[in-house]
Amino acid sequence: MAPVAAAVVAAMDAPRADRGGLVRPHERVDDLQRSGLVIIQNPVGFRFGMDAVFLAEFATVRDTDRVIDLGTGTGVIPLLLWARRRPRSIVGVEILEDVADMAARSVKLNGLEEHISILQGDLRDAPARFGREQFDVVTANPPYMKAGCGILPGQASRAHDAQPDGAGGAGRAEARHEVLCTLEDVIASAAALLKSRGRLAMVYRPVRLVDLICALRARKLEPRRIRFVHGRAELVPMMVLVEAVKNVKPDLKVLPPLIIYGDNGGYTPEVVRIYEG
Amino acid sequence: MAPVAAAVVAAMDAPRADRGGLVRPHERVDDLQRSGLVIIQNPVGFRFGMDAVFLAEFATVRDTDRVIDLGTGTGVIPLLLWARRRPRSIVGVEILEDVADMAARSVKLNGLEEHISILQGDLRDAPARFGREQFDVVTANPPYMKAGCGILPGQASRAHDAQPDGAGGAGRAEARHEVLCTLEDVIASAAALLKSRGRLAMVYRPVRLVDLICALRARKLEPRRIRFVHGRAELVPMMVLVEAVKNVKPDLKVLPPLIIYGDNGGYTPEVVRIYEG
Repeated sequence: MAPVAAAVVAAMDAPRADRGGLVRPHERVDDLQRSGLVIIQNPVGFRFGMDAVFLAEFATVRDTDRVIDLGTGTGVIPLLLWARRRPRSIVGVEILEDVADMAARSVKLNGLEEHISILQGDLRDAPARFGREQFDVVTANPPYMKAGCGILPGQASRAHDAQPDGAGGAGRAEARHEVLCTLEDVIASAAALLKSRGRLAMVYRPVRLVDLICALRARKLEPRRIRFVHGRAELVPMMVLVEAVKNVKPDLKVLPPLIIYGDNGGYTPEVVRIYEG
Repeated sequence: MAPVAAAVVAAMDAPRADRGGLVRPHERVDDLQRSGLVIIQNPVGFRFGMDAVFLAEFATVRDTDRVIDLGTGTGVIPLLLWARRRPRSIVGVEILEDVADMAARSVKLNGLEEHISILQGDLRDAPARFGREQFDVVTANPPYMKAGCGILPGQASRAHDAQPDGAGGAGRAEARHEVLCTLEDVIASAAALLKSRGRLAMVYRPVRLVDLICALRARKLEPRRIRFVHGRAELVPMMVLVEAVKNVKPDLKVLPPLIIYGDNGGYTPEVVRIYEG
């Protein structure tokens, strides 16, 4: 998804420092403003946005939980979940080699290798790799446009994104479009990975909410909490947060809307609180 | 559903006036505050609430449309739709004899017999009665609790509701609980009654949104507009408005939340506007 508020993340004073060989010349290191954590990002590639921050806040995660993040990108959700909840363990799965590598280097840079592991691979293979019903929580910020819909950013701007080492724009088209996996793939993997009563927390686009809800129920992942995120209270929501629980009865709670900007044009107190952790 | 804001409906000066034999002694006549329309209601029976007002506002209805309201109760939705949109024709279907009779008398009291007809009968029989694919719009404010869930108001308070003529509390339990028909029944009838590309507009409880969405899609009624109604912006929604279109592709628009009360404790400008028609 788009980096809605990348500006909230303050760049470090020396963004291109080498940091013991962990940071490549075209990358920068951003402060996650939580527990002193940092993240390696590519200024012209995919960067995390408010959606990841809100998902990490929204997901129900306990300190005894085993967590897996499907399509982890730069690893922002594992890092934020660690900062906030200290679960037993977190795995991040990312198919794009250069992006998975960047995520793994961020984990090292923070010294969290004992708590967070990054696996380069296809999320569809995760149940075979880790076994069925092994996780308490799955998180996912999946691609939200159907393959073939709209113009893939990569088609339009891949040349512009390219970096000297070829790693440049990796992840941009794939992060927004179902190029590498569909919504169904994400939900099928989550359903297999979760223990009974385990929880899947996702952030998605409201335009596809019906697809999402029907796909979840079809896999016995019952949506139990939904929250819409609006830029302003009088605008349509820009994202929707959904938590589904495996093998439970219907009992949905739609939460109050999460509003990003207040009447004064600044962040609402709730968003400030979420960002302050 | 509950009469959330019956106080908004101003009682007429002479609520128990006979009005040419159309009003029974235990009934009262309320001003709908639109086009001079009135409605007969039972002060201790089921009365319409904000849900009906919001549904009539939310539904897309054109002047060439044939409309049918399933489970019309006292006929409030046909009356409000007539006041607001002047569709070609409106049918209201109500199974409870005394309630259907009250609705029919309200239509007469307003002199609208040429435009609105009330049919006493089971909404499940409506497609056989009217034919398949004969309507442009179906509206419904169906029971929202599963039969067997919670205490039926009738079980707890039927004696209290009873009137000398026995008509008293009719409709209260049935309006809230799936005693006489299920959500599935309403949607199956709507799907049969609607022309291709016809629209079903419903108001329902958010707790059952997943049931609603999945049941709609299963009948090829694709949810295209959803709006949540919140008492206050910081509270969970008390109702959800959904419009589904028959035989179209997914393309959901979640609208900005409809907030009833503002910071000053009064109605928000939008609610005032809706009530003023």
